[in-house]
Amino acid sequence: MPSTPLRVTIWNEFLHEREHAAVRDIYPDGIHAVLAAALRRHLGDDAQIRTATLDEPEHGLTEKVLAETDVLTWWGHAAHERVADEVVDRVQGRVLEGMGLLVLHSGHASKIFRKLMGTGCMLRWREAAERERLWIVCPGHPIVEGLSGECFELEHTEMYGEFFDIPAPDELIFISWFEGGEVFRSGCTFRRGKGKVFYFRPGHETFPIYHDANVQRVIANAVRWAAPTGSPYFGEGRNIPESLSPISTKHTVDESLHRGK
Amino acid sequence: MPSTPLRVTIWNEFLHEREHAAVRDIYPDGIHAVLAAALRRHLGDDAQIRTATLDEPEHGLTEKVLAETDVLTWWGHAAHERVADEVVDRVQGRVLEGMGLLVLHSGHASKIFRKLMGTGCMLRWREAAERERLWIVCPGHPIVEGLSGECFELEHTEMYGEFFDIPAPDELIFISWFEGGEVFRSGCTFRRGKGKVFYFRPGHETFPIYHDANVQRVIANAVRWAAPTGSPYFGEGRNIPESLSPISTKHTVDESLHRGK
Amino acid sequence: MPSTPLRVTIWNEFLHEREHAAVRDIYPDGIHAVLAAALRRHLGDDAQIRTATLDEPEHGLTEKVLAETDVLTWWGHAAHERVADEVVDRVQGRVLEGMGLLVLHSGHASKIFRKLMGTGCMLRWREAAERERLWIVCPGHPIVEGLSGECFELEHTEMYGEFFDIPAPDELIFISWFEGGEVFRSGCTFRRGKGKVFYFRPGHETFPIYHDANVQRVIANAVRWAAPTGSPYFGEGRNIPESLSPISTKHTVDESLHRGK
Amino acid sequence: MPSTPLRVTIWNEFLHEREHAAVRDIYPDGIHAVLAAALRRHLGDDAQIRTATLDEPEHGLTEKVLAETDVLTWWGHAAHERVADEVVDRVQGRVLEGMGLLVLHSGHASKIFRKLMGTGCMLRWREAAERERLWIVCPGHPIVEGLSGECFELEHTEMYGEFFDIPAPDELIFISWFEGGEVFRSGCTFRRGKGKVFYFRPGHETFPIYHDANVQRVIANAVRWAAPTGSPYFGEGRNIPESLSPISTKHTVDESLHRGK
Repeated sequence: MPSTPLRVTIWNEFLHEREHAAVRDIYPDGIHAVLAAALRRHLGDDAQIRTATLDEPEHGLTEKVLAETDVLTWWGHAAHERVADEVVDRVQGRVLEGMGLLVLHSGHASKIFRKLMGTGCMLRWREAAERERLWIVCPGHPIVEGLSGECFELEHTEMYGEFFDIPAPDELIFISWFEGGEVFRSGCTFRRGKGKVFYFRPGHETFPIYHDANVQRVIANAVRWAAPTGSPYFGEGRNIPESLSPISTKHTVDESLHRGK
Repeated sequence: MPSTPLRVTIWNEFLHEREHAAVRDIYPDGIHAVLAAALRRHLGDDAQIRTATLDEPEHGLTEKVLAETDVLTWWGHAAHERVADEVVDRVQGRVLEGMGLLVLHSGHASKIFRKLMGTGCMLRWREAAERERLWIVCPGHPIVEGLSGECFELEHTEMYGEFFDIPAPDELIFISWFEGGEVFRSGCTFRRGKGKVFYFRPGHETFPIYHDANVQRVIANAVRWAAPTGSPYFGEGRNIPESLSPISTKHTVDESLHRGK
Repeated sequence: MPSTPLRVTIWNEFLHEREHAAVRDIYPDGIHAVLAAALRRHLGDDAQIRTATLDEPEHGLTEKVLAETDVLTWWGHAAHERVADEVVDRVQGRVLEGMGLLVLHSGHASKIFRKLMGTGCMLRWREAAERERLWIVCPGHPIVEGLSGECFELEHTEMYGEFFDIPAPDELIFISWFEGGEVFRSGCTFRRGKGKVFYFRPGHETFPIYHDANVQRVIANAVRWAAPTGSPYFGEGRNIPESLSPISTKHTVDESLHRGK
Repeated sequence: MPSTPLRVTIWNEFLHEREHAAVRDIYPDGIHAVLAAALRRHLGDDAQIRTATLDEPEHGLTEKVLAETDVLTWWGHAAHERVADEVVDRVQGRVLEGMGLLVLHSGHASKIFRKLMGTGCMLRWREAAERERLWIVCPGHPIVEGLSGECFELEHTEMYGEFFDIPAPDELIFISWFEGGEVFRSGCTFRRGKGKVFYFRPGHETFPIYHDANVQRVIANAVRWAAPTGSPYFGEGRNIPESLSPISTKHTVDESLHRGK
């Protein structure tokens, strides 16, 4: 069973909110503060929430913080390149070991998401404040727990459109419809190593998306879903010289030939 | 339809064959020479085969060579770290654009495979010359075309065992049984961008695996399967300011806020 | 390699075209005639096309016809229940053995599709002649070969909307956008036994969908893709009393206990 | 969140145990009694366990019982054909609505599993009491929660071997190795409608498989995993005459043409 309480770290680039009054009006204390409050409301005593931002030392994602994190959420947009490769590698390592990762909206272009996907993760977009409707295509999934309809709407959104250059997701949870004519795979799960990854499209700095009740619910559900399980991870390579079962065809092997794995 | 003839480049690290008499006995002109001959026999006029090796300038994988390659096969073992990151990025870019990639045996730990997978790609192994049996679990797939049985055997092999730290494959084609007690997902397909990737386990420098008729057939089938199609790839990000369909909810957006994608 | 020429059977319910002038205007000789002509144009000498309809004996799908069919396409709407269960079982058996099956539009509710899926296969719909845009989400797939854009449009269509009650497709090729606000998984592949199944949404009796060049191209591509391979199918259950490898732990088993598999 | 306590119904054919002393020695009160005790130990107050068997009226699976069941487990072997089609349809309907289903061992050939899969679901088998080793290939999955190693062993088992004629599972959790030379996809998840299905291979009437601690743990984990979520299911077909968003291209449609969906 996942550890209780779940230890959640909310990572936010936290630049737009400080630089633009229009964004600050929506997220006066940063996107991370709104997400933290929403998760506290939804998860209550089941979770301990902390936040981390780009400008902190090591972006707030030290070895210690990550070692104590069960699920990490990621929001970035303008400064993906300023995230240190060393920190990206550290996050990847923790995901492979079992830490859950939620990648939100413009986080699709983050180093960590692209590294875990192996593709470019780019897409089409348009800032026209158009209507979005997220349709559920995996109705029994824990990530849609408690949603009451077949879809939910966001009135004013930035459009993201296909082709979204990701590997085929393990599970496709939501498909978005946009008023201007596009569709998008808006909720996608991926397993990497022992870890679970959820990409969730909604969210933008100039629209109050993270104040939306359905969006908050999905993110809270996804945090629960992404929590690590108690089973071991066996990601390291390992030589097993003694076989589990007897080998009748065994013959001499020149061990000097083999190395480098 | 794929271009005719298919342009295939066989990449080989080509170190073991030059350094060890035991390997040279099996592959006197290198693993790449045996693979090239096999593909020529199987594909005939349908393919143009060339080879490239680590010690050539840019490892033989220049912009020009890759631009003229429809399918690339990859074998490496002892010197993964000597492959230049720039060349790895170039190969990844071509895969996303549609070039097929076959990763063979110890290529699981190559930079290019790990980069495309987003995971560590490690596994368990044992050099005990034990029996392997590859069972077909996707019987209608073009990659198993022409195999006559439910499985095929390799008498003396290096064992690879689970856990194999890859994303769940899009299609699982073969599962291996090993005499000493392990199993392995031995034939796995993945799509990345517009490109198709096939990981195929068999092959080792000290066993004559690439002389095996079934192994050769699978590799030839996989080359055909991985050939690029004639459809476009849309991997770049792109702003689409004019919508395809009218947007009734459109309102003013402060364009100055958005950048960095 | 698939047999050449491919033997394609186009099955059509063929009721609407005979009963309604509006449908007859679009498909004077039936939907099957338009599909047959399109496949002849696209596949030329690579295929032999025949047709079969509901009112023929055994719906035109005798043992002999099916034994000589490599790929079957299915269009039905008003009379799914009139298709004999015996014929449905026969088609299922052939799919498992390797015959390709293309299920078109309202064929989603056919007995054969529901039988192969194991679910209800229902969906939402609306007849408002609205615009549909099919977005490609699997750009390297042979089924999208030769399409020139990121999407293609159909001006007047019947809407099909999610939730579409199917198992998660093995590959999702197209997602449709509809003007009225819905999305739909419009191109889906499934493997069943040795056979390949493609569900393709477009098509309606009162819109000239099957005269559309892109729709015809996709169907032709899908026929090639669904063609059976030359490998065997091992779908029957079978006792294997003699093991392939020696069993050291073997002990006496009371054979009288076991039956019924 | 799943309802608490979870309502679990354990279905058992319950013939072998009454007819054969050798089976009765292992399962004196039936396989269902051992499974029930194991689930009670693992799930405690989180679950209410009841059982049902073939010879009860409606096989113990009345409308009422199924309406009150969150997760159903299924064991059958000798009498699959004696299960009434009406009951099978009822179980399928409940799975589509969200009830979890665990299909155990020889249940692969049950009517309900074959109906949900759409394939024959047959396999190879051998009764030689050989060793089986189940390797974990999806290490972060809740179904492997609490397992301590990379694999677990069963000393004497009936062999099940590939090709296992199922659709590609949504998630592959375990692959079995058998001493005699075969492999098998031993733990497979499938979604059907809103319901989750888990096929788990171990179990046989003449081996004490369901007394094994690891097997019991996996089954308990799978019961938790398969529990229905609180979100709605939208499996029924439905006409949506009024669009959610305005349709500019709307034109007159002859409604008289359409029926039968």
